[in-house]
Amino acid sequence: MENNFVFMFDQSESGMKELLGGKGANLAEMTRIGLPVPYGFTITTAACNAYYDAEKVISPEVESQVLQSLQVLEEKTDKKLGNPTNPLLVSVRSGAVHSMPGMMDTVLNLGMNDETVKGMAELTNNARFAYDSYRRFIQMFGNVVLDIENYFFEQQLEEIREEKGYQSDTELTAEDWKEVIEAFKSIVLKNTKRSFPQDPKEQLFLTIQAVFDSWNNKRAILYRRLHQIPGHLGTAVNIQSMVFGNMGEDSGTGVAFTRNPSTGESKLYGEYLINAQGEDVVAGIRTPQPIATLKDEMPDVYQQLVNTCQLLEDHYKDMQDIEFTVERGKLFILQTRTGKRTAQAAIRIAVEMVKEKIMDQREALLRVDPDQLNQLLHHRIDPEYKREKLAAGLPASPGAATGQVVFDADEADKLSKEGKKVILVRPETTPDDIHGIVAAQATVTSRGGMTSHAAVVARGMGKACICGCDSLKIHLDSKQFAVGDTTVNQGEIITIDGSTGEIFLGEIPMIEPELSDEFQLLLRWADEERKIGVRANADNPTDAAKALEFGAGGIGLCRTEHMFMDASRIPTVQSMILSETTTERKESLDQLLPMQQQDFEQIFETMQGHPITIRLLDPPLHEFMPDKEELLVDVTKLQITSPDSNELQEKQTLLRKVRLLEESNPMLGLRGCRLGMIHPEIYEMQILAIFQAMSNVMKKGITVKPEIMIPLVSHVNELKEMRELVIRISQHVQTETGLAFDYLIGTMIETPRAALTADQIAEEADFFSFGTNDLTQTTFGFSRDDAEGKFLQHYVDSDVLKRNPFVSLDQDGVGKLVENGVKLGKATNPALKTGICGEHGGEKESIQFCFDLGLEYVSCSPFRVPSARLAAAQSTIRSERKKSRKEPQYS
Amino acid sequence: MENNFVFMFDQSESGMKELLGGKGANLAEMTRIGLPVPYGFTITTAACNAYYDAEKVISPEVESQVLQSLQVLEEKTDKKLGNPTNPLLVSVRSGAVHSMPGMMDTVLNLGMNDETVKGMAELTNNARFAYDSYRRFIQMFGNVVLDIENYFFEQQLEEIREEKGYQSDTELTAEDWKEVIEAFKSIVLKNTKRSFPQDPKEQLFLTIQAVFDSWNNKRAILYRRLHQIPGHLGTAVNIQSMVFGNMGEDSGTGVAFTRNPSTGESKLYGEYLINAQGEDVVAGIRTPQPIATLKDEMPDVYQQLVNTCQLLEDHYKDMQDIEFTVERGKLFILQTRTGKRTAQAAIRIAVEMVKEKIMDQREALLRVDPDQLNQLLHHRIDPEYKREKLAAGLPASPGAATGQVVFDADEADKLSKEGKKVILVRPETTPDDIHGIVAAQATVTSRGGMTSHAAVVARGMGKACICGCDSLKIHLDSKQFAVGDTTVNQGEIITIDGSTGEIFLGEIPMIEPELSDEFQLLLRWADEERKIGVRANADNPTDAAKALEFGAGGIGLCRTEHMFMDASRIPTVQSMILSETTTERKESLDQLLPMQQQDFEQIFETMQGHPITIRLLDPPLHEFMPDKEELLVDVTKLQITSPDSNELQEKQTLLRKVRLLEESNPMLGLRGCRLGMIHPEIYEMQILAIFQAMSNVMKKGITVKPEIMIPLVSHVNELKEMRELVIRISQHVQTETGLAFDYLIGTMIETPRAALTADQIAEEADFFSFGTNDLTQTTFGFSRDDAEGKFLQHYVDSDVLKRNPFVSLDQDGVGKLVENGVKLGKATNPALKTGICGEHGGEKESIQFCFDLGLEYVSCSPFRVPSARLAAAQSTIRSERKKSRKEPQYS
Repeated sequence: MENNFVFMFDQSESGMKELLGGKGANLAEMTRIGLPVPYGFTITTAACNAYYDAEKVISPEVESQVLQSLQVLEEKTDKKLGNPTNPLLVSVRSGAVHSMPGMMDTVLNLGMNDETVKGMAELTNNARFAYDSYRRFIQMFGNVVLDIENYFFEQQLEEIREEKGYQSDTELTAEDWKEVIEAFKSIVLKNTKRSFPQDPKEQLFLTIQAVFDSWNNKRAILYRRLHQIPGHLGTAVNIQSMVFGNMGEDSGTGVAFTRNPSTGESKLYGEYLINAQGEDVVAGIRTPQPIATLKDEMPDVYQQLVNTCQLLEDHYKDMQDIEFTVERGKLFILQTRTGKRTAQAAIRIAVEMVKEKIMDQREALLRVDPDQLNQLLHHRIDPEYKREKLAAGLPASPGAATGQVVFDADEADKLSKEGKKVILVRPETTPDDIHGIVAAQATVTSRGGMTSHAAVVARGMGKACICGCDSLKIHLDSKQFAVGDTTVNQGEIITIDGSTGEIFLGEIPMIEPELSDEFQLLLRWADEERKIGVRANADNPTDAAKALEFGAGGIGLCRTEHMFMDASRIPTVQSMILSETTTERKESLDQLLPMQQQDFEQIFETMQGHPITIRLLDPPLHEFMPDKEELLVDVTKLQITSPDSNELQEKQTLLRKVRLLEESNPMLGLRGCRLGMIHPEIYEMQILAIFQAMSNVMKKGITVKPEIMIPLVSHVNELKEMRELVIRISQHVQTETGLAFDYLIGTMIETPRAALTADQIAEEADFFSFGTNDLTQTTFGFSRDDAEGKFLQHYVDSDVLKRNPFVSLDQDGVGKLVENGVKLGKATNPALKTGICGEHGGEKESIQFCFDLGLEYVSCSPFRVPSARLAAAQSTIRSERKKSRKEPQYS
Repeated sequence: MENNFVFMFDQSESGMKELLGGKGANLAEMTRIGLPVPYGFTITTAACNAYYDAEKVISPEVESQVLQSLQVLEEKTDKKLGNPTNPLLVSVRSGAVHSMPGMMDTVLNLGMNDETVKGMAELTNNARFAYDSYRRFIQMFGNVVLDIENYFFEQQLEEIREEKGYQSDTELTAEDWKEVIEAFKSIVLKNTKRSFPQDPKEQLFLTIQAVFDSWNNKRAILYRRLHQIPGHLGTAVNIQSMVFGNMGEDSGTGVAFTRNPSTGESKLYGEYLINAQGEDVVAGIRTPQPIATLKDEMPDVYQQLVNTCQLLEDHYKDMQDIEFTVERGKLFILQTRTGKRTAQAAIRIAVEMVKEKIMDQREALLRVDPDQLNQLLHHRIDPEYKREKLAAGLPASPGAATGQVVFDADEADKLSKEGKKVILVRPETTPDDIHGIVAAQATVTSRGGMTSHAAVVARGMGKACICGCDSLKIHLDSKQFAVGDTTVNQGEIITIDGSTGEIFLGEIPMIEPELSDEFQLLLRWADEERKIGVRANADNPTDAAKALEFGAGGIGLCRTEHMFMDASRIPTVQSMILSETTTERKESLDQLLPMQQQDFEQIFETMQGHPITIRLLDPPLHEFMPDKEELLVDVTKLQITSPDSNELQEKQTLLRKVRLLEESNPMLGLRGCRLGMIHPEIYEMQILAIFQAMSNVMKKGITVKPEIMIPLVSHVNELKEMRELVIRISQHVQTETGLAFDYLIGTMIETPRAALTADQIAEEADFFSFGTNDLTQTTFGFSRDDAEGKFLQHYVDSDVLKRNPFVSLDQDGVGKLVENGVKLGKATNPALKTGICGEHGGEKESIQFCFDLGLEYVSCSPFRVPSARLAAAQSTIRSERKKSRKEPQYS
């Protein structure tokens, strides 16, 4: 055998996760450490890739290895697949390298057919169980493998139930199930034009193929895209002998987390259902019981579970998410994996595991995903606000959200794309609803528990979620839900709190988030480790204060145009722009000067000596002007209705001026330092405002460290001229006030040419700040405004681009320019300070990249500062580990 | 003496042109070879730069060296500056490294004052001459050094003339001139609040300073910008003892070219004035006599001049432009320089000098400026057209032009900026009119000869010019000119032919240019030398035929969108764009297919096997749509006037669709291959049209070599996907027709990212064509449409950018990307073909750059092909000479 495509659970070795997938590797690992795992084998991801390479054909080699392994399994269990008297039943589950909950498909009870069902009935002395299991198999196989909509089976079952006058499935007898089985087989025949396959080996290979196929279904591709998982990894398939949680009241199935995945509390957490199979818990159809009650119902099993959880956490040194089944009082562990958790839980677990000496601080820092932290830094419901609760469910994923109610994932997706905020309300969710959960601010379900599909997915995304809110009576047909007498229609606004499970009518005020003690501690550890600065982008004193609160080391980008945009200033700004002469323009600028100066004074006072990078006016002037189309419509109307009016004349004049400012590609037009070159009086006013503010604040005994940044330089001569302007005005103010200023002059590197000629530019610059938003636009030739709506999404969806380059820095292209810019810049000016102030400054992979290039700081929005501090620490730790060639595996 | 800032004419050595300037170096050279040059000395360009470095102060060191040299001059001439009985008079002239005719200022007769004029009168026994010379000196010094408008002097002179009832200056007596002198001195006193300086040394240093200052006057800066002369070179100053062409009828002054600068004919060519000073010829105030008549008037002098010309041409191995003066029958050579010439003359001279064995072919190729050739390739007046001549003057610079008459340089400049074509008509031109000559299509003067200011400047620019057309009676006040009974007002259209000197009323049809035999020969020599291909950008069979005629080796850029723009196709194109479904769109595309196919068939047949690079659709779709503003105005009007009309509804629908296509930065939006990615059916149609056309033309036995080019690629995956599309369709057509196609698939490199990741992209490409227009836009972040109107001109004017990067490739920035692209591309795909198809493909410096990078070809508009062939040959020759370390000096 040249390639080993199949491994028995006790045959594989550690470190084979790439081949066995996460689930398979864990099953093998658990088997090795002696846990009660039902025996089985894993078909490797290599077999999956071979399947795709062979244009979706399972090779004879793989087939024969599967059959050989099946034989081993049969020998070990002393049962035989398809044997009428002693049948082996197996589960078939996918298991990719990265855990992809709900994405891939599972088939249980495989091996059931018209003969083996009888044997099972006899063997277990439980005909009802046997026929129930058989119908479950037909339904699952029919849905997953044969692609028949579940709806047909559910409808059929409902009909029979109604016919018999039953309220729930538990009332169905063995005979009833036989009737259901026949009906289900008809559904299969009708939908596939073939009888339900009776040959268990045919069942097995069809299912393996279905698992392989599901690797490339739409949901899986969407999930991979959301989580940046490469498409070439493939999935493994796990074949495991069945154990049954549905063999009566001494059986059951459940899910346990070794710690609370929502809060992080170190206490066994989970749910179970008596007399049920595994899928019942996750699917959220029946609402399960909390794990604590198992202690009373099955004390031995509970204790065994507690011990196993401890063993697994000790072994994996991380919080585990465990699936278990109790078959007639005996505990089996079906699966363990690193448990998904909220940001809050991730932080608490990491911090507590350090206290428990399970790991050190550096390891703890690596265990928290910076991307996740943002969810802790969003607004929450104002606890002071008097409000009345409409309903309450399980607090499945924390966070508060407000939005219009929608009842359908497609609708949620559509409205969200139109810029609306929506809350998805469903009886339960399935993997088909993922795009709706992604699009919605939050999800609410009336059924299902804390480990239901909606809960798991929402927590993974850091989105608020409430589950099992059964007081909600949802009417999908009429698109409304009722709670008591209150009816809420699609489109009405509700507010939810995922941390308490509460639902409110209307919009409720939110308050700013605060950092928990554990979060603060973790960030202090991060600051101890990190070797790259973190600053914030802040344009006003409020943002500046927030930035300091969140631990920013300064302001990396203070955009002065937002100061121009203020409603009370716009008329002055407009008359400045419309000035016919420089003298006229200076008059308007004289009016703006004290306003700008006051802005700067407030920010300087707030920042108390931390450096502040101030970017001079950047956007094209027409952004401050009235809308051209509106003017054109007004003028056209007035020409008909009042052709002699003064109003017409005035609007015509204004329209003419607005047209003069119009540009075909404003992003590449008269903006940035080009404004300063053509209308130096505008920059003069801004520079004067900065230095006068500086002297006023210095007189109060406060240190001020401005770093004046010239935007959109593409040739060193632009910077040279603007630098002279800054120096001239600074000297003027210093002479006037008798103060000595300490400040820097630098530039944004945001055109390819600036990066390519950084050696020349660095000779005139004290610092470079890479403006990677604009640099991405010019390097790709993408206008972000146009690209995102018109083709970028298609590019990402169809894998033309791995990621949206405006979200994660394009290292191959834009990154090369940044690298080049740093290298050339430091070559001619070794004292050059370098940083990044594009949106990428808050994104973990981009931070790693910036750290590796030797940048001094990253700058991001204040709310991303904590996450950036953590990412900065991780970059440092990873790079150091890489250097000492001890790069660990990240799960 | 540490630095030698001053050199006597016989003291300097060859190769000191950088220090002595062109004029100074030539004076020294002529002195060395024994020509009759009035003695003198040159103050170096280093002294000029020292002057600017010292914030416009002449250093004591320079001053003392000047005085020492003056002493040497006094000794040699046996005269003394300021000596009342034996005064030395000198001329002071600027002389930069690059000849800048009319740009810098000259002062003659320096040394004249109230005392020396008397000495001169006695010495020459010609009081009239002496006083005339003195008044000339006051006038010139007053104007050039003291900055008094010439108008004051001219007006004063005119008053006195009228008072006395004289018709011309020659009637003024010595006494009259004395009166003029007193009046001129009053003008000086009134304008400068100081008396006219009587101290000749003060006169001298003030004049030297004025020459230095004139290096940075507006005209000089404009000229340097037009001719790409760096500003740091500085000017030298030549001090030369005066000789006098105005000492009577046995004296005179003139200008001679060793060959005809207009046609290139090898025959002495020039003009002279009897009893005049040099400035009279150039200024164009008196119309001089042709040089041939000198043979009769002063046979000895004429023969001496002929011999001198021969000597100079032999010495410099190039056509010379000589200034001479005859003082009382004795010939003096005042200046020689390489003569400016028309393109036609440049070619003929180069070709004939090879025949005369003065130089070899390679040298001849270097002697013709490729930039100049374009003037030979523009339209000329249709000789078949029956027309009546309005007037005729001297054919001062060849070429034909049509435009509105303007009488003022400012007006010409203004109208030209508004996109109008104008012809500047002036009595004469002065350096103050340069911007008008630049702006106008052609210049006509009623006074002045073939070497007048207008003629020299126009020839240098390759613009048509007619001089000395004295039948034109120009009335500047009423803005009209009259010829006999005909009056032509400002704004009326005339047509002129600079090759014949004819002026016509109205517009006259033009015909396509042809290449002269000499031109053809020169280009054949160029083709023998050049090692880089030249292709043409051509979108239709006419351009393709022109390209072949002008010697293009193929089509480097065939833009398919121009085929879409055809008026008869636009409705179909629009309905294609407006399609709501892919099916609808395909219907419109099916209609376009045969049209595109026919276009390609015609081009393929024309090109007869030469390669044709076809670029698939590139511009954003809204370029094909109706104007949004017009629609908006229509809709607004209809809403008031016919709110219920169908027309309103239709226009509203159209407006909505046009809005959907609208983009904020269309240059960076949905265009190029992004169109092909989002609407593959459009590219499918184009590709099908190409291959079906190919098979049809191949069936006629004609070879077809299409090179299909995918535009605006920024990521290799875009090219990969489009490449697959091309291959799929090509295979389909090959299978259908049974033909085997030979074709290439490549891409434009026109985004920085494409250049930065060229190694990846080259793996999917057979060729790269650098689209340096768009690459310049994205690298600088300049939208050409916006930049050129709003700030680029300012950048070039104020030296922020040396040249407009859309005209000459920016080697520091864009060039780095091209270099990188070629290097990376050839690294992964050594068979990669590379070329350039931006406008730079026809510009000589850019061609040199492309050749040095190892590009296989350049592509430019058909009319620039001849010039590109020459530039390509020059690149090869220069690079080879550089390699053999024998890089020559280019004058």
